[in-house]
This record gives sequence, structure tokens and C-alpha cells, in this order.
Amino acid sequence: MPEIPIRIIPLGGLGEIGKNMMALEYGDEIIVVDAGVQFPEEEMPEIDFVIPDITYLLEHSDNVKAILITHGHEDHIGALPYVLKQLNVPVYSSRLAHGLISVKLREHGLIGNSRLNVVEPNAPFKIGKFLIEFFRVCHSIPDAMGIGITTPLGAIIHTGDFKVDHTPVDGNKTDFSTLLRFASEGVLLLCSDSTYSEVDGYTPSEQIVGEEIERVMSDAEGRVMVATFASLISRMQQVIDAAVKHDRKVTVIGRSMVNNLKMATKMGYLRVPEGTIIPMNVARELPNREVVVLATGAQGEPTSALVRISNGTHKDIQIVPGDTVIVSSSPIPGNETLVSRTIDNLYRQGAQVLYSRIATVHVHGHASREELKLMLSMVKPRNFLPVHGEYRHLVAHADIAVSMGLSENNVYVLEDGDVLELTSDKGSVVESIPIEPIFVDGKHMWNFQAETFHDRNKLARNGVVVVSVSLAEKSRELLGKTGIKSFGYLGDENKENLFQITSEKVHLALEGKLIDGIKLNEVDQLVSSIVSDHLYREIGKRPIVIVNTAIL
Amino acid sequence: MPEIPIRIIPLGGLGEIGKNMMALEYGDEIIVVDAGVQFPEEEMPEIDFVIPDITYLLEHSDNVKAILITHGHEDHIGALPYVLKQLNVPVYSSRLAHGLISVKLREHGLIGNSRLNVVEPNAPFKIGKFLIEFFRVCHSIPDAMGIGITTPLGAIIHTGDFKVDHTPVDGNKTDFSTLLRFASEGVLLLCSDSTYSEVDGYTPSEQIVGEEIERVMSDAEGRVMVATFASLISRMQQVIDAAVKHDRKVTVIGRSMVNNLKMATKMGYLRVPEGTIIPMNVARELPNREVVVLATGAQGEPTSALVRISNGTHKDIQIVPGDTVIVSSSPIPGNETLVSRTIDNLYRQGAQVLYSRIATVHVHGHASREELKLMLSMVKPRNFLPVHGEYRHLVAHADIAVSMGLSENNVYVLEDGDVLELTSDKGSVVESIPIEPIFVDGKHMWNFQAETFHDRNKLARNGVVVVSVSLAEKSRELLGKTGIKSFGYLGDENKENLFQITSEKVHLALEGKLIDGIKLNEVDQLVSSIVSDHLYREIGKRPIVIVNTAIL
Repeated sequence: MPEIPIRIIPLGGLGEIGKNMMALEYGDEIIVVDAGVQFPEEEMPEIDFVIPDITYLLEHSDNVKAILITHGHEDHIGALPYVLKQLNVPVYSSRLAHGLISVKLREHGLIGNSRLNVVEPNAPFKIGKFLIEFFRVCHSIPDAMGIGITTPLGAIIHTGDFKVDHTPVDGNKTDFSTLLRFASEGVLLLCSDSTYSEVDGYTPSEQIVGEEIERVMSDAEGRVMVATFASLISRMQQVIDAAVKHDRKVTVIGRSMVNNLKMATKMGYLRVPEGTIIPMNVARELPNREVVVLATGAQGEPTSALVRISNGTHKDIQIVPGDTVIVSSSPIPGNETLVSRTIDNLYRQGAQVLYSRIATVHVHGHASREELKLMLSMVKPRNFLPVHGEYRHLVAHADIAVSMGLSENNVYVLEDGDVLELTSDKGSVVESIPIEPIFVDGKHMWNFQAETFHDRNKLARNGVVVVSVSLAEKSRELLGKTGIKSFGYLGDENKENLFQITSEKVHLALEGKLIDGIKLNEVDQLVSSIVSDHLYREIGKRPIVIVNTAIL
Repeated sequence: MPEIPIRIIPLGGLGEIGKNMMALEYGDEIIVVDAGVQFPEEEMPEIDFVIPDITYLLEHSDNVKAILITHGHEDHIGALPYVLKQLNVPVYSSRLAHGLISVKLREHGLIGNSRLNVVEPNAPFKIGKFLIEFFRVCHSIPDAMGIGITTPLGAIIHTGDFKVDHTPVDGNKTDFSTLLRFASEGVLLLCSDSTYSEVDGYTPSEQIVGEEIERVMSDAEGRVMVATFASLISRMQQVIDAAVKHDRKVTVIGRSMVNNLKMATKMGYLRVPEGTIIPMNVARELPNREVVVLATGAQGEPTSALVRISNGTHKDIQIVPGDTVIVSSSPIPGNETLVSRTIDNLYRQGAQVLYSRIATVHVHGHASREELKLMLSMVKPRNFLPVHGEYRHLVAHADIAVSMGLSENNVYVLEDGDVLELTSDKGSVVESIPIEPIFVDGKHMWNFQAETFHDRNKLARNGVVVVSVSLAEKSRELLGKTGIKSFGYLGDENKENLFQITSEKVHLALEGKLIDGIKLNEVDQLVSSIVSDHLYREIGKRPIVIVNTAIL
């Protein structure tokens, strides 16, 4: 009887591959790693986020035994409410991730029915034929885990998002000894984080950021404002530690920042000395020299606290001479312009600004090339699957593995939906499951429809012109005038005159065509092309033209 | 009698300050440095470009004596057709810039009336009370110049865009001796390029890119494709040199690339051995090992040659195994995602890809911090004005000057429109001229109207729903059905049913209101809010709703 292969299927479907969800299948048992959301690309305005396509899992729902969560970031847990609604399987996660998942499921009214389990690192447990062991890795959120999954064909190591930090803020290092134990027993497959596989050297430790923040708190004559991600619990700890050391109090603005600070403090992930956190109105009474403001907005989000401050429109905080602002983040691709503009405006308001291009006020949470090599060296896998990255990142990571001596035949660059089958002695991509990423927009979930985004971008480029025509069905006579309105079209006052003439042109042309016997269901199309052509001749561009013909 | 001050006014008005145009005024004489365009920001889709607001110059048109051009890039010459139409003054530029300007003015039918002058470096000439001397600087286009302007109050040095390259491709280095000569006589003001004032160290020489390109041409077993900017004449030279050395022929695709290659070769700025450039159909007959493809698309422009190749939709070129693609550029802010996606897709097609994050295939054309210090050290100005950069870049450059011993009182960070008045012993910003950047979109030029962009972005986020209603003026009766169409709105098939119900709701509500005696000119507004509220309840988001009411 031939050996039953292990099947590995990255799901997700947009941008980074295998990032938000991955399925492992052995015989009639499937376990899933992560259930996250992806944030939309630039040409998909106003889509809230994208969730993985779980059609394959639903088709085999009886086989799905569990979802294992590596850590509590949105791109690893954010899709759980949508997934669990359709597939209510047990979820296993570390304690902090469990806290964040619980908040989320409660918001969706799903907490009562869900089967959430907290797992400790290095406490193996069985799910069907799989033996699961979580182990610690460093990342930009506490309690991040890699997962060792021992299958009948050998061990699979999934790193989750990781970096190697010898001096992490929470003291929990990436667990080399567990990795080496797995390696000594032989590892069938390593799935490793590729996010920074283009970046040479080592990712710096969080420690250097802590030192810089402390230096600023010590030197600054006035207030210090720190903007960062609400999920960056360790950065919050650094800010609080530095504030305490330099006799400053901390006031926190931004809803998500306030909530996460409360949750993390309550769960013991943040150490905050009594009296350190003070409300805004108390902070206002203190000398500026004793105040720290911790805020959201490090990505230049237009409605965030930091951006309002930078525009001078925040209701409680105005920049005053002596203020220092630390923008403790680096822009996520697509946000570069927003972040730059926020920094420019903070300078205009008179603040001193420190940001990642000119000061070491941020380090990221992913391994750079030398750390990726270290991981490969320690685990010595027989097969290698780069995950978490766009296609070029996976290729760069695959190249690293090959440069370290792995055969190209044992290194796989997959797309979402590709099915990698591994036996104990070989592996190959056997099929490709079609993946339709699911877009969530308001209350609405839909499968990928490139057309809608395409249409929205057309609107954004040229605006819309709306034409209405009424005509009598029997007499084929035009009734009243042709109405024309526009939105996002011309910016000047010439519009009125232009539309007047356009309207007359439509009227004339249409009258003729009606006499010639044009079919009434072709009127929309005819009017649209008359208007479009006329505007093109006059203005040089074609807006979207929408015609409503009322046949009365 | 008090001394007449020199007045310095950066014009332009969007993003980078003093980049596209700057005016120097002494008594009743004004000279202008550069007349370029700025490319639009992300939230201004389909604006072609932005030109400086020359209202101040038009108000003093008799005083404007000349426009001096530092180099031939679009952001320094692109606005000339628009400016000269309104203000036909003499233009002075280096030879290559003159060639590029001539092409541009010919396209606009302005070449006959224009007064274009070619100037050589270090050949001083007088314009009114100003003595003008162009001098060479290195930049990413040949024949780039800085300008020394001797005024009755002292010399002003404008660096233009520059870097310090000791091994430039065309052999023309930044002219230290002219700078030192000016310095020895005393410099009133230095205006210096701030684009890379955030970047530590030195900008690498073009030479290292040439070496890398040569290495690739030597090692690659198949075709080598190089994508770069059509204006990067020196990069083209490097590609041609490397191709010749390694017995390859070069085929060029992309209209602007073909045109610039022809022009630069004809004018002697490109040295191309006979027979090196071959047409595509000849290249196709050669072994891949002997072919180089030079193409546009290094910014991921959707209709460019490179992007079509990356999508597998180019009519002449498909990626075949063994192809190497060099993306010889770094993404302009805002283009990051487009460039990344192009690289991903080239990998998917099976190409080997080299790009700036993983190989030294591009260096930029602006001085980094150590070069900026060198410039300040050499020129030793009494006053310093950082130009060419967003606000934070100017601040960073100003900080460099202060750190080198200039008093804060002699360093000025301006916004476009600010008027800096300098006398021989002091300087201050005396007023701020309101600047309205002018947007060019198709044949249409308009002053800044934030509303239009705002509206277009609303359309892009939620799409548009168009409603038409017909009613009889006398009887106040509704005629026919309420027509509803949409564009870029929902992506699914539920729309039909949703609009059916919405239409009925409108009909019912409107009928009631008509009986209640609503004014007919309020019908649009009423229908719009009925539709908007209903869709919000059903879908959770509000599209733009446009209503046309025909009153018959």
C-alpha cells in the first residue's frame, strides 16, 4: 500500500502567501494554522479587509480538527469570527492571543459557542494523529509561538512570525533548544517566515529602541509624545519604563491603545506602576517636562490622534514649543505618503520629530537574512517551504535555503491554493485549488470581483456624469429637457455652460434618431456615447457616463 | 537711503518646496530658476501634473527678465509650455536641457516664438544687475548645472539637483573649483538640494551600477532585460557599454525610451557603436545569449512594456527560462506596490530578477548628508536656504547647517510663497504670497479645488448609485417607475433585488410627500436621503447617490 502523504495547502489569497491561513492534511484529518485577515491593496478603496477562502475546509468540514494560532496579530486571528461561524472547531492559542481572540468573538456574539483553548509552550498535546507542541519565538507581540507538529511521516516546524532577539523586552527568547531537539530527531519540513528575506544581516533587538526612547525622555525639555501600533505591547512597556525612570506620567489617547493597555495590564503582559497612567485632564496640570503622551496614528491614519495633532485639529492636544514626537513605526507599504505628511505637519507645528529614517525609534518583528539562515541551520529540515511573504520574498528565502545546501527539489515556492504533497522521501505540488479571496466591506462579504474595484478606480480618475432622459413610449417624443449632473468631475464654473450645450446636443441627436426609428432599449447606449464623445472633445477626458431613460 | 534687499520666493505649491520654481527679485528685476511640474499625490487620481502658480510673476511681468534652467528633468522644465504662453521671457539652459525643451515646445506649437538660449558652463553673462554663471554638477541626467548669481549684495549659489560623484559616467564632475572661487569672494546665500537630507553617508557613484550591469551581462546565460527611466541617459550608456563589451545587441522598447535614445545619440550625449541597436524582429533571430532588451516600466506603470511582460501580455516579448530582468530604479513614493507586484510577476513568469533592494542596480542622483556637508563646507555661505524637499527634508538639511556652525538666524526653512528678504547683514521672511497650485488634467487647467479630489475619493470608496424620477408638474403625479443604476457599487447579484425594493420604497415615500405638498425643488434631496438611508440599513455603507428628477 502506498504511503499516505501529508498535504500542505497555503490558503488566504491576496498578497502575502500562506500568511493568514495554512492547512495540513493527513488522511482524513486536517489541522489549520492561523485564521487572519489581510489588509486591502491600494486599488481596493474602502474594503475593510480580506479573509481567506475556506471553501476547501468547508467541503471537508468533518475532517477539520482544530485551528492553531501562532500569535495575536490581526493577520493571524482576524478572520476567526468569519471562519468559526461556518466551521466551529476548537481553537488553540497562547494566553495573550486567547485574550485578544475572546474580545473579538465577544464583539461578534460568538464567544458562548466557541471552543477556545489556552496552550502553554512545550506542553505537547495530541489532535488525532498529530502531536502538537507550541514553542516560544520573539515577535513584536508577547506570547508569540512557533509550532512543532509531529506527523506519522515526521515533524513539521512552523515558525510563525519570528525574529531572533537576544534581549527581548519581555525576556522570552526564541526557543533554540526546542528547535534543536526537533532537529536531532529529524525534521520533515520547515515552514519559515519570509517577510524580511530581502534584508541583509540581523534585525536589531527591541533593546536599542528602548535605549533611544529613554534617551529622549531624559533629554527632552518638554512633553514627549510616542505614536505606535496599539498591538505593540512591548513598545508600550518601553515607553512606560522610560517614563517611570525619568519621573514622567503617561496619558494614553486612541481607543484601541487604551483598550489594549487595559487588557495587557490586566493579563500581566504590561507592568505598570500604580499612578503612572493618568487621564488627560490631570496631565494638563503637570509641567510639560513630566508628561508623556502615548498615542495611535503611527501609520498616518487620517482620523487618528497623531494626525489630528499634526493638523492642529485635536481637541485636547496642541503642539507647543519644546514638544518632541517619536513616530515609533515604519510605514506599511502604501502608507508612506500619509506618514511623511504627518511628520512634515508635526514639524510645521513646531515639534521636534524623531522617526525611523533618522533615529532608531523602531525595529520590526521579523527575521532578516542572517536569522533566516540561523533558523535553517538549526532545524536542518529535509524539505523547506518559505511562507509569509509576497512571491519575491518567498523566492529570496528559497534562494537562501538552496545557497545553504538544500536541493532545489526539496524547496517549494507555492501560491495560495497550491497543494504540496510530501511523503517521507519526496514532495511535489499535485494540484491547485482555486482560491477566491473574500472581501469584507461593511456588512457585506463577497468573493473576488475585480470588476468592482476596476469600476471604482475609473470613478476616482475621472468622476461621474449622470444623464436622464424621459420619452413617451407611444409617440416616441422627448418629454422635458435632458438632465445632466456630475460628481467629482470638473472643478470649475464652466460646467454649467458645458452641460447646457451637451444637453442640447443630446436632445437634437436623440430627436433625429427617434424619428429614424431607433429601438427604445438602445437609447441609454446612444445617449451615453453622445455625451462621452462631446465631453471628450471639449475636455480631453472621458468621465463615467450613466444614463437613465424613463420611458413613459 | 536703506539698502534694497534681495527677495527670494520659492514657488510651486505642492509637496517639495522650491523644487519646481524659484524667483529672485532685486528692485525691479526678477529672474526665475526652473519651471517644472510636480507629479500628483495619491489622492489626486488622473491629474496629469501640477504646475507652479505664477500669479506673482504675471503681476510683475515687466520685471521678469529670464528663466534659468538647471537641468532637463520634467520637474525642472515641464511647466515651460504653460509659463511661456503667459510670460514669454528668454530661457537659458545647458545644451541637453535645450534639446529636451525644444521637443516639448514644438509639441505645444510654441517653438517659433520662444527665446531659447544655450549656455555653456563657466561662461558668465549679465541679465540686468545679475551676473549669471552656470557650473557643472553631477545628477542623474547629463549637462546638469548649478548656478552662481552675483547680485549687488553678493553671490547666491543655487546647486540645482546634485550629487558628488568622483567617477560619473559622462566624466563631468561637480565643479568644486567654481564653488571654491565663489566662496573665496564670499557667498551671501546658498540654496541647496535637500532631497536626501535624511540619508546618512555618501550616495554611491554611478560606477557601481555599471559594474553590476556588466557582471550580469557577462554571467547571464540568456537575455538580459533592463528597465529604467527614459530620462536616465547615463544608465542607458552603461547598458550599451556593457552590451558591447559582452557581444550583445540591444533592442529598445517603449516610445519615450526610443525617442530619448535617438535624441541623446544625435546630440552626442550617448556613444552608441554602429549596429549595436537592433529592431525587435532582428533580435528575435539572435541567440538569447546575445540579446539585451532596454525598456521602460521601472516604476511599474500599468501600460508600460515591463509590466506587460510581467503579466505575460506583451505582444512581442514573453519571459523564457534563462531571462534575467534588471529593474534599475527605486520606487518613487506612492509606486512601491506597483513595482513590487511587477517584480513578483516577473518571478512567476520564471525570470531571474535583480532590483534595488537585493542588488546594486540603481543609485539615485541626489547628495546624501555627507555630501551636503561638503557643499556647505566648500561654499561657506553667510545665509543658507535648503530647497528641493518636503518640509521634513528642509528641516533635516537646516539642522545639518546649524550643526556645522551656521547661526539659526541665518538658516531659513520656507514654504512655497514665503518671501525671504536678504540684505547684506540680515534676512527675514517678510510676507507670504498665497500659492494655489494649478492642476492640469486633460486639456483642462484649474486652480486647486480640494473638493473635486475629495469627491473622487468618495466615489472610489463606495461607488455611485444613480436614481431617476419623473413626475408631472401640474398633477404632482409620479410618472413611470423610479430608475436605479449603479457603478462600482455592489459586486454581487443581489443588486437587482435590492434596487427593486429600494425603487418601491422611493415610490411609496415620494407619493405620500407629493400629496403632503412637498416643494418640487426638494424632490432630489428627499429621494437621495431615502435611497441613502435604505442602502445604509441594508448594506452598512453609503454610496454616493445622485438623483435626477424630471418634472414634466
